[in-house]
Amino acid sequence: MEKVAIVSAYSTPYSMRNEMSAWEMVKSVAEGALKSADKGIYGKDIDLVIVSNFSDSFGNFLHVAPLVAGEIGATSARGFRVENACAAGGTAIYLAYNLLSAGLGKNALIVGFEKMSNVPFSSQSNEVLMRASHPEEYSVGAPYLSLYAIMAREYMRKYGAKEEDLALVAVKNHENALRNPLAALKKKVTVEDVLSSPYVSTPLKLLDSSPITDGAAALIISSEPKKITDTPVYILAAEISHDYSGLHQRSEMDAINAARKSAVSVYRRTGLNPKDFQIFEVHDAFTIAEIILYEMLGLSERGKGYLMIREMETSFEGKFPVNVSGGLKAKGHPIGATGVGMAAELFWQLRGEAGGRQVKNAERGLMENHGGTGATSVVVAFSR
Amino acid sequence: MEKVAIVSAYSTPYSMRNEMSAWEMVKSVAEGALKSADKGIYGKDIDLVIVSNFSDSFGNFLHVAPLVAGEIGATSARGFRVENACAAGGTAIYLAYNLLSAGLGKNALIVGFEKMSNVPFSSQSNEVLMRASHPEEYSVGAPYLSLYAIMAREYMRKYGAKEEDLALVAVKNHENALRNPLAALKKKVTVEDVLSSPYVSTPLKLLDSSPITDGAAALIISSEPKKITDTPVYILAAEISHDYSGLHQRSEMDAINAARKSAVSVYRRTGLNPKDFQIFEVHDAFTIAEIILYEMLGLSERGKGYLMIREMETSFEGKFPVNVSGGLKAKGHPIGATGVGMAAELFWQLRGEAGGRQVKNAERGLMENHGGTGATSVVVAFSR
Repeated sequence: MEKVAIVSAYSTPYSMRNEMSAWEMVKSVAEGALKSADKGIYGKDIDLVIVSNFSDSFGNFLHVAPLVAGEIGATSARGFRVENACAAGGTAIYLAYNLLSAGLGKNALIVGFEKMSNVPFSSQSNEVLMRASHPEEYSVGAPYLSLYAIMAREYMRKYGAKEEDLALVAVKNHENALRNPLAALKKKVTVEDVLSSPYVSTPLKLLDSSPITDGAAALIISSEPKKITDTPVYILAAEISHDYSGLHQRSEMDAINAARKSAVSVYRRTGLNPKDFQIFEVHDAFTIAEIILYEMLGLSERGKGYLMIREMETSFEGKFPVNVSGGLKAKGHPIGATGVGMAAELFWQLRGEAGGRQVKNAERGLMENHGGTGATSVVVAFSR
Repeated sequence: MEKVAIVSAYSTPYSMRNEMSAWEMVKSVAEGALKSADKGIYGKDIDLVIVSNFSDSFGNFLHVAPLVAGEIGATSARGFRVENACAAGGTAIYLAYNLLSAGLGKNALIVGFEKMSNVPFSSQSNEVLMRASHPEEYSVGAPYLSLYAIMAREYMRKYGAKEEDLALVAVKNHENALRNPLAALKKKVTVEDVLSSPYVSTPLKLLDSSPITDGAAALIISSEPKKITDTPVYILAAEISHDYSGLHQRSEMDAINAARKSAVSVYRRTGLNPKDFQIFEVHDAFTIAEIILYEMLGLSERGKGYLMIREMETSFEGKFPVNVSGGLKAKGHPIGATGVGMAAELFWQLRGEAGGRQVKNAERGLMENHGGTGATSVVVAFSR
């Protein structure tokens, strides 16, 4: 058997409000991924349909896998939906990779989506999001922005990072999004813009936060990739790890240890280290998360991640480009689509198809997609 | 490697309203399954945590797998939730079986739950349930009882079954539930009771329908079962199949073809036929479904399933006992728990631990767990 690889990817643009229904978005990316395959692939060739979605309270939409299978004519496919909070997409990739590696089918279609604009009030959408946190965090009414604010305060206290450092992540990712036609927030922001935006939970401000987003993305993953394209993007390794769900249960409140565990596992399996990757897509739901992830993924020593953004090392032109897509921060964060979209971005980048945001000489890419404040983290390594 | 088997099972009682929260129910069955293992098993031995749940609109509860893993001390487990409408539980079993067979861990904990009583009005819970149907069925406001009523009318028209035949399924399953301490509806009903209960969608009446239910169930599945118990219940084969999501898309509106496809696959893989099984748990969300399933599973010829219930062939003392637990109809249907609970029942039966409802000489059992009107069907064969 050849190695398992991504052979096609497709995405709607991400936006604050997509006029399509959840089903229309899902259908469009499923069909788009099939039609985009270089040598052609048809619904009947799909053995596995994995749907990634966070909450049916957003899309009012469940049991989506058989609907997709029926629509594309995948009459002998097996399908199901996975959910792991914001890491649903990464989890779908982990499962497709392992099920195909085990011989349970040859071609998998992954569809991730979220139609968050259906829920009009932020108090409502916050409640839905909070269902992914520890029951004690939920019962005291702590939204994610407050939980990430706790992480940020602790990190800043321990290591001396400043609010300006967080702002630099937003500035970088907004600038990257200007080059990405799929991005929801195509708006340049300055450090001053971020610092003067309203506090949502001190020290985090509105512009430190990823937006409520509509969007869908799809991948085709195959264990016979060369039948479908001459330039597949191979999955070198994929790992899911967990940490305690509640911040109060963790030894370090300002770490995302599940990401560290997943990254260590992926590096060990591949024999690679962080410097062997030329491009990274990571889960910057809030700016602080990206800085912590530099450390968890081993791009920086512990406590020094904020120096990387100060030194511009993770910018588009930097040594380790992170979130060239714009990231969750500016590309957007349609939850069930997010991890799927990260892999789509790396697929395009590693094939040299990323247009104005193409990273030069990108041979290998790494994605980190986590759920909640990091109770789940999926890391996947790709190579052209 | 030994064959993969269930080594422990646990369940809350099913009821119209469980005073425990969703998290308390989940915790209680996860811990119960660990503690019930004959030779002992600990959280740290669990490599895979799979959560089965239908809608977060019922339990306000997402991202449950890492929470379970943290609670039981499964620090190196990988976890995620699956959803496939009412077939989520069967899907979880399918995935655990295949992932363990592929060597991705040795012991899996499956937890299924639904806390349906959180949504107090039937109009609301119907809307949540309808999210699992085809978008066109959803948009015209057709609840599942109407969709199953269409199936029932078509079946009765074609084959001459009567409303009394449907009623006999309810009578049988209510009588079975009287012997099951876990059942939600412990109430004997007569054919007259069923026929005189109010129509909910002609020809289906209130007593043809499964109830809104709270409950949770858990299984431990292992690829090294003899380390955990001397009397494992082996999984011989498991299959997921699909049909078109909408009734209007199907060639036969009164069939559940996905169940037929899954059953045929399971019989082919095991070399067994329906008569090789001594006990069956099937998805009788409405009475008509059980009759159709006799035919889909090959217990009866097409169009003659209703004669089996007339002849009492599927009663507790009959040749092919079906839904000795009381079934969805009378044991109850806490959606995410349902498929998991079916397997738990077969585990107890095949180990001879089913007390007053023990089927004599039960060596092999078959479960059928479907979603919606049968867009997804999971069939699993077990053997002691």
